[in-house]
Amino acid sequence: MSGSSFGKIFKLTSFGESHGPAIGGIIEGFPPNISIDFEFIQNELNRRKTGFTNFSSSRKENDKVQFLSGIFEGKSIGTPIAFVVFNEDHKPKDYDFLKNAYRPSHADFTYEKKYGIRDYRGGGRASARETLSRVVGGAFSKIILKKENILVRSYVDQIGHIKHTNKESLDWDFVEQNSVRSSNQEISKEMEKLLLVIKKNGDTIGGSIYCEILGVPAGLGEPVFDKFQAELAKAMLSIPSVKGFEYGSGFNSLEKRGSELNDEWNADFTTKTNNSGGIQGGISNGMPIYFRVAFKPVATIFKDQNSVDKNRNAIILKSKGRHDSCVVPRAVPIVEAMAAMLTLDFLLRQKVNL
Amino acid sequence: MSGSSFGKIFKLTSFGESHGPAIGGIIEGFPPNISIDFEFIQNELNRRKTGFTNFSSSRKENDKVQFLSGIFEGKSIGTPIAFVVFNEDHKPKDYDFLKNAYRPSHADFTYEKKYGIRDYRGGGRASARETLSRVVGGAFSKIILKKENILVRSYVDQIGHIKHTNKESLDWDFVEQNSVRSSNQEISKEMEKLLLVIKKNGDTIGGSIYCEILGVPAGLGEPVFDKFQAELAKAMLSIPSVKGFEYGSGFNSLEKRGSELNDEWNADFTTKTNNSGGIQGGISNGMPIYFRVAFKPVATIFKDQNSVDKNRNAIILKSKGRHDSCVVPRAVPIVEAMAAMLTLDFLLRQKVNL
Amino acid sequence: MSGSSFGKIFKLTSFGESHGPAIGGIIEGFPPNISIDFEFIQNELNRRKTGFTNFSSSRKENDKVQFLSGIFEGKSIGTPIAFVVFNEDHKPKDYDFLKNAYRPSHADFTYEKKYGIRDYRGGGRASARETLSRVVGGAFSKIILKKENILVRSYVDQIGHIKHTNKESLDWDFVEQNSVRSSNQEISKEMEKLLLVIKKNGDTIGGSIYCEILGVPAGLGEPVFDKFQAELAKAMLSIPSVKGFEYGSGFNSLEKRGSELNDEWNADFTTKTNNSGGIQGGISNGMPIYFRVAFKPVATIFKDQNSVDKNRNAIILKSKGRHDSCVVPRAVPIVEAMAAMLTLDFLLRQKVNL
Amino acid sequence: MSGSSFGKIFKLTSFGESHGPAIGGIIEGFPPNISIDFEFIQNELNRRKTGFTNFSSSRKENDKVQFLSGIFEGKSIGTPIAFVVFNEDHKPKDYDFLKNAYRPSHADFTYEKKYGIRDYRGGGRASARETLSRVVGGAFSKIILKKENILVRSYVDQIGHIKHTNKESLDWDFVEQNSVRSSNQEISKEMEKLLLVIKKNGDTIGGSIYCEILGVPAGLGEPVFDKFQAELAKAMLSIPSVKGFEYGSGFNSLEKRGSELNDEWNADFTTKTNNSGGIQGGISNGMPIYFRVAFKPVATIFKDQNSVDKNRNAIILKSKGRHDSCVVPRAVPIVEAMAAMLTLDFLLRQKVNL
Repeated sequence: MSGSSFGKIFKLTSFGESHGPAIGGIIEGFPPNISIDFEFIQNELNRRKTGFTNFSSSRKENDKVQFLSGIFEGKSIGTPIAFVVFNEDHKPKDYDFLKNAYRPSHADFTYEKKYGIRDYRGGGRASARETLSRVVGGAFSKIILKKENILVRSYVDQIGHIKHTNKESLDWDFVEQNSVRSSNQEISKEMEKLLLVIKKNGDTIGGSIYCEILGVPAGLGEPVFDKFQAELAKAMLSIPSVKGFEYGSGFNSLEKRGSELNDEWNADFTTKTNNSGGIQGGISNGMPIYFRVAFKPVATIFKDQNSVDKNRNAIILKSKGRHDSCVVPRAVPIVEAMAAMLTLDFLLRQKVNL
Repeated sequence: MSGSSFGKIFKLTSFGESHGPAIGGIIEGFPPNISIDFEFIQNELNRRKTGFTNFSSSRKENDKVQFLSGIFEGKSIGTPIAFVVFNEDHKPKDYDFLKNAYRPSHADFTYEKKYGIRDYRGGGRASARETLSRVVGGAFSKIILKKENILVRSYVDQIGHIKHTNKESLDWDFVEQNSVRSSNQEISKEMEKLLLVIKKNGDTIGGSIYCEILGVPAGLGEPVFDKFQAELAKAMLSIPSVKGFEYGSGFNSLEKRGSELNDEWNADFTTKTNNSGGIQGGISNGMPIYFRVAFKPVATIFKDQNSVDKNRNAIILKSKGRHDSCVVPRAVPIVEAMAAMLTLDFLLRQKVNL
Repeated sequence: MSGSSFGKIFKLTSFGESHGPAIGGIIEGFPPNISIDFEFIQNELNRRKTGFTNFSSSRKENDKVQFLSGIFEGKSIGTPIAFVVFNEDHKPKDYDFLKNAYRPSHADFTYEKKYGIRDYRGGGRASARETLSRVVGGAFSKIILKKENILVRSYVDQIGHIKHTNKESLDWDFVEQNSVRSSNQEISKEMEKLLLVIKKNGDTIGGSIYCEILGVPAGLGEPVFDKFQAELAKAMLSIPSVKGFEYGSGFNSLEKRGSELNDEWNADFTTKTNNSGGIQGGISNGMPIYFRVAFKPVATIFKDQNSVDKNRNAIILKSKGRHDSCVVPRAVPIVEAMAAMLTLDFLLRQKVNL
Repeated sequence: MSGSSFGKIFKLTSFGESHGPAIGGIIEGFPPNISIDFEFIQNELNRRKTGFTNFSSSRKENDKVQFLSGIFEGKSIGTPIAFVVFNEDHKPKDYDFLKNAYRPSHADFTYEKKYGIRDYRGGGRASARETLSRVVGGAFSKIILKKENILVRSYVDQIGHIKHTNKESLDWDFVEQNSVRSSNQEISKEMEKLLLVIKKNGDTIGGSIYCEILGVPAGLGEPVFDKFQAELAKAMLSIPSVKGFEYGSGFNSLEKRGSELNDEWNADFTTKTNNSGGIQGGISNGMPIYFRVAFKPVATIFKDQNSVDKNRNAIILKSKGRHDSCVVPRAVPIVEAMAAMLTLDFLLRQKVNL
């Protein structure tokens, strides 16, 4: 009930505050007898690491993951896999000035209202640092998905007003080679230029991520409430700063007619178009699943802001510390991790029907 | 695991195929000792009924709900509340032509792939008729929310290209007085005009619904995976035909800067703006929660469509039967029902922290 | 959270008060594409019916089960199977005298304390009539277990001081041929004789049931908290009037040494003895699973009893209505139903590891 | 689904193999804003420690618990509490001789059948070392129960043939002062004498624990499947080596009549007798809850035993390493921990009805 678990059969339960001793989790339901590629897992973690670009926070963390159980002689043994990443560079003192303050558009006030107590050392569970556990869970999922020839991939398709709408100009190999995780060289340069301006102003900016899941067999997802798209929407909206989700024809459907959007079948049970986004009636049909996730600019900016404290006094806040001017490029592995965990969970859930 | 349950403490488990004997469900976790307003519940059901406008399906159903347990002398007694709506007007024969056919953008193929068997009488669980159970669950929820001074309300803010973007021209009282559930008289007329054209063409069209939840106390929603917006997104994307969801500043956030979107606090812990959509860090802050849901046009159209059957033969399909040309107005009570059930569930989940 | 669901993948959610309109439930996770033997299901229900012997209650119920969903053309289709048994012979008026009374060793007081309201028409959810839903769920489970060559069977091995300890004198075919469900002709006569005395005295008496599950493959059950024996114990203790459970060497283990109880392996991975009761470390080993369930005498007796009412007044209660003098014989199909549902659930849970 | 979680609102998810890097868990649902008595928690852990008597295993472990999250400035903050106990003295090499062997009455064979792979370093998750996490969870629970004036306490009431049946001779203060956790000085001496003989023989012996929960308010426990006694039975049968459970009048009920066992009410809603064991219809009635748990002798004995290996070869096994000759005294804090966690979970579950 605490909101810290994701998945039904493949299940991640995460723990850890951004400035507590450690971040980690327990993975249940990972298939037994699978060789674990530790380097791949650490690599996925490195993809979300701070300090990866000029535009992201300078908090120094090695973020080295350690495993405490569930693995023996390099293989999963079916029991819960516990992992932990110790917070090496946490400086709670940095946050003393926040002890009684409520930052605009942060979770300070809401956590205090919920629990009657507040961990004022940074964002606690509301910090993006929590997503570390998701990436570990996602990396494990990808190990199985690879065996099943399922591929999850994504790129930043918009930052501010710079959009990448032409899906034909996608260069997937380029995504991990540029600091904004664009899939197009020219657009990446424009985005980087924009981010420099934003950073100079001490401000932050929004953006969006396009993600696709290829190779999903038909039959995954559950009717009615646990539709594939419903769980996918939940997975994405659970990521900090996400404000919107669409899949398949998405918000473009509003102005379209049924005769325009319906996906005609081919004789091999592929469809001529894929406005359905690979999902019909909540269940995968074997076509690519694709969706888009909207991120707001992060709330922490390096400008003076008016705010209030616990005692209802007006205060002026100026953020210190280490923060991103645009969180979207670093969110790419997180979006993938959530999509990967969900797909694996649905794969396992479908096993009981076979 | 079957995907037929919604909620953790307040929980609806639904059952029923569109052309089976009945639709219904079991409600668990409804607070005990509450007077049940049966007329209100039946009224909510009537709001989603077929035949309510020129633009919707002409299937004739009284949709009279019966209660089988959990209520004694007009009051809830704490035990599961089972309810059932018998399908009076189901004509499975209407669907014999579909026995081996896969309709474009329907769930025929995917259900068969999932379960290895198909209920070819209409949409089965994928039919919008399933939403009946949701509306009953929502009506029960609203009974409690009313006591807590929480109000869920919504209207159709777009059909095709006709948009209602000016939030100042909202006339909430008008919503239930027009066939398209617009909240503005002029716009309703344009929408109705558009729908007449669509219907004449045997086509269907998309649209969107704006919904708000007023009076939610601060502190509802859970950290990390079960954030208020995450569960809300899941709730909405579980509704048939929904393709997108946004809350607060939503997709508009992409081009905005942090300094523009941050919501400054007032001394009374309200905020000057509400780009956060009433939720910060996944937890309600006491401001209105608002969101928007995108619907695609329904897949059943009254035009010849190319398709295939099980044996990979090309066929031409022409829908018969009774279907909506625009499902969005009828979806208003469904969107509200899902929002109401979720809000009640979060209210009850928060009780364990107090 | 309401306590009305059993199972994780194969899951029964039950509803209904003993004197409300109906008893029923929703079965989720039943495998799709299975032919349903309706006669067998009704037969199982008949096994638990009132009026089956001289010694049980004379409430007249046909207990005819109806199916509302999840079955099409005689086969399961993978969606929830809802079923209902209408209460034909409920006479709430019979219970008016109980409106303010608390019967000794009944749930009147505890339900009122729990929910702040009481359904005083008989036992409500605490009545044994609730077990109807369990038997339906068990019957569905047995359909699958039969395909897997798994057999659940049980008999009454003790009523009062009449014990059946000699496992070599078991005549399984005899169990359904005698009113006390003994598996031995002589013992059955003694038990019947005892029950006549008890009935004449307006009293009730306890007893126990021996149950075995044959053909369970090795590997079922989950480590640590959801051990096979742990879930089995829960299943049995959830049956009304059950006060104890033991499996394998059970309470006899207390005075034994490890060297006496350890089960040596044969070369074919059977064991020479089976003190483990077919379960080691919570997981089945392929040997027969067997256990014993202790029932107290039912609380409703036909003698004057001192009691109190809501207002703390002393009252004298004399039961009216229709009740069993010994519930144990009728509990045989209930014990089997619980064991069958659990075994099926574990079978399905194990699928995700394969 | 992995079987590693206990509880619904207060929830412990445990991890760790006996000879892996660590044992630990995540506690969810612990009430926020509670001062944590770390010394008390460590003390509870020490109560189950090896080496506490002559009769138990000599594995040396400090079993020092560390906390990784959920606590700030000595108080719970509402978020998941992760804890870990590193395995300092694990010597996997000790177990090389077991690589291909199946020990009698151990879980070697069943785990391998379940997961297709085996952690042959000792018992893995089936080892009693796993109960460490339970004791930590129980200690947290007791912190809340103490505030609510609920007391869980237990003692060893039988080892081998030495029984403590006279409840009037209980000296609760004595329990923690003797090596067998008897509550009576004379009986403790007899038990110790018996254990010396058993140990000398390289054998093991069974026993039982009596436990009571005092101060439970009326209204806890859920109807039908999640009855207080059902969850209690599951909790106890999940403990390694447990073979039986009874509560209230238990197995003694078999030979009793209803007129003998019914608990008459007093005018203050206590009962004159307490054969119900504090629970009626699955819900607590405010009287003491009491029960008894039967343990078999542990399977590891220091005698030659015939067994087989993976390749069906006959082998002779002789246990090495460090093991208990009677596990029952050390199980006392484990029984209490399970009872405490369950009671707290039910307390929290009841909050949603209030």
